[in-house]
Amino acid sequence: MKFVKNDQAAVFALGGLGEIGKNTYAVQFQDEIILIDAGIKFPEDELLGIDYVIPDYTYLVQNQEKIKGLIVTHGHEDHIGGIPYLLREINIPIYAGKLAIGLIRNKLEEHGLLRNAKLNTIQEDDIIKFRKTSVSFFRTTHSIPDSYGIVIKTPPGNIVHTGDFKFDFTPVGDPANLAKMAEIGKEGVLCLLSDSTNSEVPGFTMSEKVVGSSINDIFSRVDGRIIFATFASNIYRLQQVVESAIRFNRKIAVFGRSMENAINLGQELGYIQAPKDTFIEANEINRLPAQEVTILCTGSQGEPMAALSRIANGTHRQIQIIPGDTVVFSSSPIPGNTISVSKTINMLYRAGAEVIHGKLNDIHTSGHGSQEEQKLMLRLMKPKFFMPIHGEYRMLVEHTKLAKMCDVNIENTFVMDNGDVLALSKDSAQVAGKIPSGSVYVDGSGIGDIGNIVLRDRRILSEEGLVIVVVSINMKEFKIAAGPDIISRGFVYMRESEDMINQAQKLVASHLNKVMERKTTQWSEIKNEITDTIAPFLYEKTKRRPMILPIIMEV
Amino acid sequence: MKFVKNDQAAVFALGGLGEIGKNTYAVQFQDEIILIDAGIKFPEDELLGIDYVIPDYTYLVQNQEKIKGLIVTHGHEDHIGGIPYLLREINIPIYAGKLAIGLIRNKLEEHGLLRNAKLNTIQEDDIIKFRKTSVSFFRTTHSIPDSYGIVIKTPPGNIVHTGDFKFDFTPVGDPANLAKMAEIGKEGVLCLLSDSTNSEVPGFTMSEKVVGSSINDIFSRVDGRIIFATFASNIYRLQQVVESAIRFNRKIAVFGRSMENAINLGQELGYIQAPKDTFIEANEINRLPAQEVTILCTGSQGEPMAALSRIANGTHRQIQIIPGDTVVFSSSPIPGNTISVSKTINMLYRAGAEVIHGKLNDIHTSGHGSQEEQKLMLRLMKPKFFMPIHGEYRMLVEHTKLAKMCDVNIENTFVMDNGDVLALSKDSAQVAGKIPSGSVYVDGSGIGDIGNIVLRDRRILSEEGLVIVVVSINMKEFKIAAGPDIISRGFVYMRESEDMINQAQKLVASHLNKVMERKTTQWSEIKNEITDTIAPFLYEKTKRRPMILPIIMEV
Repeated sequence: MKFVKNDQAAVFALGGLGEIGKNTYAVQFQDEIILIDAGIKFPEDELLGIDYVIPDYTYLVQNQEKIKGLIVTHGHEDHIGGIPYLLREINIPIYAGKLAIGLIRNKLEEHGLLRNAKLNTIQEDDIIKFRKTSVSFFRTTHSIPDSYGIVIKTPPGNIVHTGDFKFDFTPVGDPANLAKMAEIGKEGVLCLLSDSTNSEVPGFTMSEKVVGSSINDIFSRVDGRIIFATFASNIYRLQQVVESAIRFNRKIAVFGRSMENAINLGQELGYIQAPKDTFIEANEINRLPAQEVTILCTGSQGEPMAALSRIANGTHRQIQIIPGDTVVFSSSPIPGNTISVSKTINMLYRAGAEVIHGKLNDIHTSGHGSQEEQKLMLRLMKPKFFMPIHGEYRMLVEHTKLAKMCDVNIENTFVMDNGDVLALSKDSAQVAGKIPSGSVYVDGSGIGDIGNIVLRDRRILSEEGLVIVVVSINMKEFKIAAGPDIISRGFVYMRESEDMINQAQKLVASHLNKVMERKTTQWSEIKNEITDTIAPFLYEKTKRRPMILPIIMEV
Repeated sequence: MKFVKNDQAAVFALGGLGEIGKNTYAVQFQDEIILIDAGIKFPEDELLGIDYVIPDYTYLVQNQEKIKGLIVTHGHEDHIGGIPYLLREINIPIYAGKLAIGLIRNKLEEHGLLRNAKLNTIQEDDIIKFRKTSVSFFRTTHSIPDSYGIVIKTPPGNIVHTGDFKFDFTPVGDPANLAKMAEIGKEGVLCLLSDSTNSEVPGFTMSEKVVGSSINDIFSRVDGRIIFATFASNIYRLQQVVESAIRFNRKIAVFGRSMENAINLGQELGYIQAPKDTFIEANEINRLPAQEVTILCTGSQGEPMAALSRIANGTHRQIQIIPGDTVVFSSSPIPGNTISVSKTINMLYRAGAEVIHGKLNDIHTSGHGSQEEQKLMLRLMKPKFFMPIHGEYRMLVEHTKLAKMCDVNIENTFVMDNGDVLALSKDSAQVAGKIPSGSVYVDGSGIGDIGNIVLRDRRILSEEGLVIVVVSINMKEFKIAAGPDIISRGFVYMRESEDMINQAQKLVASHLNKVMERKTTQWSEIKNEITDTIAPFLYEKTKRRPMILPIIMEV
């Protein structure tokens, strides 16, 4: 890295700054690069048809011989979803906690990449030593088991990456290792990279145990079936449902592929503990009385193909809503999913179910710490330099204000963009340069083959539709040989607009005949004449601007 | 109405039940129909390219000679936006409060419909008498001046429609007329139709005056310019901004067409009162010191073309963010706008502005009453029958639970769909039948010319794009005369996929040649062969299913 001095450590992100998702961070010292996380991002609506967004891995590919390994903080998609795409480019060793390794293994198997993968399960006390740098861990609490913060020792100083965290003092699994964090802070932190997701939220995030007690309340008072929808990756939540079910003498049937996988993996790794007969098959539901049934399913975000949505709209093969059913949304809608969640709830009401959702019921809590927790992390780590990560731009800015309150010099805080490189020496830090960064779109099996032009076309097509004008031209005689024919898709209902289409055909024909009278007309002129004739005509008639596609066949 | 008896009144909705928007209700007694409101709905994302949604007016057109008039409760778009479309079908008299009439007048002028419109301004104490029915009013509080509830006297009994309301005991304008409501209740209400928007929200909605005091706080402590974004129709909010500006010695520049209209109309009608020199022109902003400037603008919902969005992304002709600017979002994002609001806020942070938004700052309040206010209305009106209106399905259901708590017999509550007809006699009510109802899409100047097929095509085009295969066939010799050529839009970036396209061309050519060997091949077979050849090929290569459009030219 030409803009980083030989005694400086470089810290940068390929994703995760100014956005929620595709978290991919790196620490480089000389010829050693430690990668942290490799996430994907789910596309916003305007990225029409795109399945996932991953970072541009160019810098990593160019410097692959320097990369010592990928350290994974935890097993959420926005931290591990990019791994198959990254491994296809560079097959580096991966280090992660037990559950994350399990989830990565499943993912790599699906992509046919498991055989050559170099997977290493780490424990909290492990230290991974490289020639000039080393990596150690501290246990945090988050909405998935085995979440770790990471300490990277480099010659200029220690760089700490919190991963995603909250401080849950009454967690379902192991508590955060405050002692180790305090020790790390005491030893000295040159730069802290900390989770900014909830930096706009005052106070302290609710404990997972409070949710557990709400779940218990529901199980204690509901007589009918309980249909419980939540994020499959929240193994703690699943375990709390399992415990309530056992306590109130209910069996559990599991629906949705990711939920089935999570229950299997959770049991395999010991996070979900239940007597063997707790789980039942779909076909056993109807043999049990309603008050003995729990249905645990995906679809808490209103995803149209998920189990709950199909149950709600009556298209699920095995489950129909019956009177007395209570549906629990143990989740809060991600922005962008608000409307689909709302629709699912309305459909469930229509089908006659009781629905428990929303903030009032303490039926969900965030996995990310609020302002007081972010301050606690800052007080424990006492960093010299601070770089807020994982959050939209305004959240990063708000997080630096919290750092300032906790005695970090505001000049020592760095709100950066993906690609910006922070150069750190023992006692200085500055944004020293920029490496290639950006977003790569995954659509179907295509990675990066969809760019702005394709998206612009999809946008026009989606809003205004398409009008194709086909005409065969005899280019020797400068005469129309056949057509013009007009075909449209997504524009108007053709059968009801025959008049307009006929008029347009005649108009195009007369304009083309006139243009060709010169007998020297070029192909491109014909093409332009078609567009220039029909676009204003259609706009005047419909106030719409469909994409016009002239197709000229030479005969 | 064949399914309603001669001594029964019929109540039904063409829009506004099970949805937020396109509110259009009607009360019919024998040959007299009273229409209440004629709103539009803003389309959800899945209605690609649609501008507005209006109700199907078939029943009204068929029964136009019975319609005595359209009564408008207040001037919001979801209550008046449909008027131009309705008047184009049936030119009925319109009755509304002063501000609503002003807004309707502007709207009809834009549509060239003002000249023939029959507009009547009503006062609270007016009574509109028809032969068998009459209409009177009671003042409510809502987020726009001149909001009224409506009483329709019919022989079987009085039917009350609340319009949109909250109970703001410290409003900016006139308070609700509790005495008149109590009197109406005392006289007897056969059926109450009441606003259900906030039936899931416990407690009491915050007063507009609290927002005023937050605005004052901001004006008292901010030194730089204040850029204030809110809904143009909330004239009370605008008046409070004007008062704070005057108090703290600031001038106001207004941006955005709907905001300019609202300020003009508000001043004209006396709702906005300010010394003449309070408002300044855009070009005067830079002559004043920052602490004397207020910029009042549209765009609080992150609408991409609104003033605030253009200010945020640096494309506004007259205003750039400068250090010290404070931007106030006096609004809460409508579901579906969350992401665009969030983007606008991030851009403003990047540009260096302070941003005040969100629930914590008491900078916005709903115009709709929460549960306690809905109960107050129920206690005042003491209806025999109850029909929750204006809200999604689950809100209607929750509202009936509140009615039950307020001693309305749950069997006397009716959660209905648009088109359902409630037949009311003195002592009975039942859903007696259904009239045509549904949604009509407005796109550009087209009303109802976009149906499900066009929308389905837009959806496919938007997600997977389009592949056109053009081929000229000599149908006498059964030979390909030219092509096949392949053109795509929104599918892949063609230049980078040349190989795939070439392969596809060859594949189609060879299949077509084979099919035509029989020398009896039909046009439709050729068409199918093209689709059946290329679709699986492209899916295998890309895992995408673009729309395939075979175009065959006969030569």
